[in-house]
Amino acid sequence: MEIKRINSGPRWSDATVINGTAYFVEVAEDETADMRSQIRQVLAQADDSLATVNSDKSRIVAVTIYVTDFANFAILNEEWEAWLPQGCAPSRACVKAELADPNYLVEIAFIAAVV
Amino acid sequence: MEIKRINSGPRWSDATVINGTAYFVEVAEDETADMRSQIRQVLAQADDSLATVNSDKSRIVAVTIYVTDFANFAILNEEWEAWLPQGCAPSRACVKAELADPNYLVEIAFIAAVV
Amino acid sequence: MEIKRINSGPRWSDATVINGTAYFVEVAEDETADMRSQIRQVLAQADDSLATVNSDKSRIVAVTIYVTDFANFAILNEEWEAWLPQGCAPSRACVKAELADPNYLVEIAFIAAVV
Repeated sequence: MEIKRINSGPRWSDATVINGTAYFVEVAEDETADMRSQIRQVLAQADDSLATVNSDKSRIVAVTIYVTDFANFAILNEEWEAWLPQGCAPSRACVKAELADPNYLVEIAFIAAVV
Repeated sequence: MEIKRINSGPRWSDATVINGTAYFVEVAEDETADMRSQIRQVLAQADDSLATVNSDKSRIVAVTIYVTDFANFAILNEEWEAWLPQGCAPSRACVKAELADPNYLVEIAFIAAVV
Repeated sequence: MEIKRINSGPRWSDATVINGTAYFVEVAEDETADMRSQIRQVLAQADDSLATVNSDKSRIVAVTIYVTDFANFAILNEEWEAWLPQGCAPSRACVKAELADPNYLVEIAFIAAVV
């Protein structure tokens, strides 16, 4: 089975694809920003990652959302719902966890179907 | 590739399926219950979700279990082992994490094969 | 769809495979060891698990890394980069979480393509 890797570095690839299924993980590029900016960055970066694997936000099937503080949960959900096309919500787990950079407020792991 | 979504809401779908692989996440519907009740609810809800995607508990391939307190680990394992058919155990990660509702004691993300 | 399970026990299987995709989770067999030893054990055990499903470390597509303390992050990354073949990095999420055994310092959930 062919494996496709996008921007493969020493620690991770920006996205991988096997068998029509894409895997990618996003944290905000500007990690000094507040929660609303970070979640918007994460979702915009997800749009870009999806485009690189020939998919889009209507084709996400599962996400795991890690937030560092549930005080940010309302902002997360507001931006998430605004971003997601109607009728296209994935399966979703959401838990609290500290992230690799103490400035990160949210990290999302995505699984999506390639067109 | 066709994507199937069960009960798609604004934030998540109850289950999604691509390419013969189903994804769904469960937390107890009655989140005021104790651990034994919550894990039983989660597993019964998983039975229902599996049925909606034309699968069953003998066809789970991977789970991620989030518990809020490892003091509940023995109860989790007892109910888990009682529920799982012999010879059908999935790959399993289990970690401690706070969950979106402070009453939740356990959340399980499932990946299963569709028949 | 056929499901393959390696060493299926009452709680988990050491690995599962559907549709050319393998799932497995590793923690160090000697959990009294320090971080460098634990991550090396985890990666060596991953080599073994990959071999049992007819895959290898050049074919991993996604990992979720749980560490109990980001003070161990540098050691994790050092061993991870040394182990991973060039150009073969998976998608990677990394979060802090307490694990089932208080001695465990790292747990990794892998998704890999079978040859």
